[in-house]
Amino acid sequence: MIFITRKEHFSAAHKLVMEDWSEEKNEEVFGKCANPNWHGHNYTVYVTVKGEPDAETGFLENLRLISELINKHVVEKMDHKNINLDVDFMKDIMPTTENITIAIWNQLKPHIDSINCELHCVKLQETENNYAEYFGQ
Amino acid sequence: MIFITRKEHFSAAHKLVMEDWSEEKNEEVFGKCANPNWHGHNYTVYVTVKGEPDAETGFLENLRLISELINKHVVEKMDHKNINLDVDFMKDIMPTTENITIAIWNQLKPHIDSINCELHCVKLQETENNYAEYFGQ
Amino acid sequence: MIFITRKEHFSAAHKLVMEDWSEEKNEEVFGKCANPNWHGHNYTVYVTVKGEPDAETGFLENLRLISELINKHVVEKMDHKNINLDVDFMKDIMPTTENITIAIWNQLKPHIDSINCELHCVKLQETENNYAEYFGQ
Amino acid sequence: MIFITRKEHFSAAHKLVMEDWSEEKNEEVFGKCANPNWHGHNYTVYVTVKGEPDAETGFLENLRLISELINKHVVEKMDHKNINLDVDFMKDIMPTTENITIAIWNQLKPHIDSINCELHCVKLQETENNYAEYFGQ
Amino acid sequence: MIFITRKEHFSAAHKLVMEDWSEEKNEEVFGKCANPNWHGHNYTVYVTVKGEPDAETGFLENLRLISELINKHVVEKMDHKNINLDVDFMKDIMPTTENITIAIWNQLKPHIDSINCELHCVKLQETENNYAEYFGQ
Amino acid sequence: MIFITRKEHFSAAHKLVMEDWSEEKNEEVFGKCANPNWHGHNYTVYVTVKGEPDAETGFLENLRLISELINKHVVEKMDHKNINLDVDFMKDIMPTTENITIAIWNQLKPHIDSINCELHCVKLQETENNYAEYFGQ
Repeated sequence: MIFITRKEHFSAAHKLVMEDWSEEKNEEVFGKCANPNWHGHNYTVYVTVKGEPDAETGFLENLRLISELINKHVVEKMDHKNINLDVDFMKDIMPTTENITIAIWNQLKPHIDSINCELHCVKLQETENNYAEYFGQ
Repeated sequence: MIFITRKEHFSAAHKLVMEDWSEEKNEEVFGKCANPNWHGHNYTVYVTVKGEPDAETGFLENLRLISELINKHVVEKMDHKNINLDVDFMKDIMPTTENITIAIWNQLKPHIDSINCELHCVKLQETENNYAEYFGQ
Repeated sequence: MIFITRKEHFSAAHKLVMEDWSEEKNEEVFGKCANPNWHGHNYTVYVTVKGEPDAETGFLENLRLISELINKHVVEKMDHKNINLDVDFMKDIMPTTENITIAIWNQLKPHIDSINCELHCVKLQETENNYAEYFGQ
Repeated sequence: MIFITRKEHFSAAHKLVMEDWSEEKNEEVFGKCANPNWHGHNYTVYVTVKGEPDAETGFLENLRLISELINKHVVEKMDHKNINLDVDFMKDIMPTTENITIAIWNQLKPHIDSINCELHCVKLQETENNYAEYFGQ
Repeated sequence: MIFITRKEHFSAAHKLVMEDWSEEKNEEVFGKCANPNWHGHNYTVYVTVKGEPDAETGFLENLRLISELINKHVVEKMDHKNINLDVDFMKDIMPTTENITIAIWNQLKPHIDSINCELHCVKLQETENNYAEYFGQ
Repeated sequence: MIFITRKEHFSAAHKLVMEDWSEEKNEEVFGKCANPNWHGHNYTVYVTVKGEPDAETGFLENLRLISELINKHVVEKMDHKNINLDVDFMKDIMPTTENITIAIWNQLKPHIDSINCELHCVKLQETENNYAEYFGQ
């Protein structure tokens, strides 16, 4: 069993706001992240897959293919977008690092399942000091 | 003459759009940066000052003070904000990396002038692959 | 189950010396780290907690709170200090990377236990080339 | 149980080619990596060992020793070499990141087994965006 | 006058050998870099251009265009290639970091001259510890 | 004229204290850096030299030689040492980042002068957020 990881990037705007909360409560819980006019980040996503390397090619799976799947199903939908407004698979989901990480996992799972390896981990880095990891359960 | 540099961070939303251009022309010139619903970045700002170190303390200037000036006059005004809408000193300025860098220079210049050193360079990194530098002329 | 990680920094002096060993034996076992007049490092600590994100806020736990706990119980006690002499929770503990990592776990465990998540890992990076990880058992 | 990791570097040339395939098939499967005249990388290898820290010294194992083992059995054999042609333990092995990672594990295992800790993970970073990890099974 | 920098990557094989020198002299002067079967690196190239930002768009020059020029005239010719054998503009040039940096400058200069800015610096990082810079004179 | 840079590391303890000042004044000016029991850092030093590459070898100067000079005259004297107490060339000099940078320049200048290039810049990074640069005048 070998694990391989591919890193990709996207830059996006978002805000953390509960519509039915007062501005004060939103500020208390979400702090600066509740700014009504949005803010944004450079996000780095690490996708780890696992399985047996092919005896002939020595590839678990071609990383070009992993990269294409991440780009098609995640980066193209999120890069230079507003996560709250523009991203179909984030509809009605509070865009915390935790929730975006889980949503990226759900977005990639069926596509990774259809190739020669298993999705192991999605790690999402939001700032230099913060990241989330999800292993699917 | 010695040069010292202090690095600070802010995360912000912005978009690059000329109001009186068509959507097509904006997209052609500004590409993904013209997304109407904004996008965002983690910005890293490097402020370099120069001068003679004090013979007694060995400090050109206390970096705590440089850091406080950057935080008060730049980071607190830009962090978790929308650069187009929320930042007074970016009013009516297209928020390209180039223009933000120059605006940060103008914002810091009078405050650095009032302490024991000279502003030498503002460097602004917008993504891992892009940055701008301004030396005041 | 989601995992979130917060990174913090501190700079400290230390030395690795067994008081009842000869200088030669200390040098043989601890090498340059036994320098009698101390040396020091910039330490980076990564604290990983795990649990279920809140269905409403999407937060496992507010990272501001995790950051405050690390700062109060670790960084304020270690930053710009001598680990052998100044840090109460390192008293009579040889300050190897391994032991500092375990001590930071013990220092944080009761405080993380009292909030909505579980301490999963403390990782301590001492130099660009070395780090230790502890998972509590 | 504590985990410690040592990072080392080597720079090497390689190519990914199946001798009995056509140039077209090699290009289709291995892409640019099949360039007949070789290409190369700066590789970063992270070796993680685990065990109990010594009660007296606080060391799981002296990282100088781990570093010496990695240098003697891996770096000296691979650094500034051609992985396909010059490295005895890569003979007849397709030098994908996956296979190099497993080969480094096999190369280090008996030597780590003979000291006071257990080999836990070999991680090999081939480019800024790709890495593989192997845990021995 | 503003300066903007774009970072790109390529991975390549090379060796440093004077054909008419003995193996011993080559090894003495070029050390491990003279390995007859090649070695390789991940190269990072930083291209800095300077000029006045456009009053309307706030762009010195669109970084997409700078990126396209670097990719077309440098990266596509060098990535996953052998610098000694495969790169037309390195023919009969010893591929030291110094000489590659100057060759990239010469390769880019006419193309940057034909757009709205001036080439200021080419910086080439060969390993984590070494880089060269060239300013055109 | 080409510029090449070599990066090296050392870890050291220091403190910033004026012996004839009160503890209060030291704390006011030097803050946490005045801790009586020392603190420490991982320092990264970048040494940049300039000159013409040799027409035959393509080297400005062999970076192995630059690296050896930095190691002999700087790293071996500072690594795992106390800058205030153990380093001969820092005697009676307040060990601020500024002063250490200038002292490293003075330490290296005669040795670089005796080889085929000119010392251009010493850059010293003390923490992730602070660095100093000195160009010799």
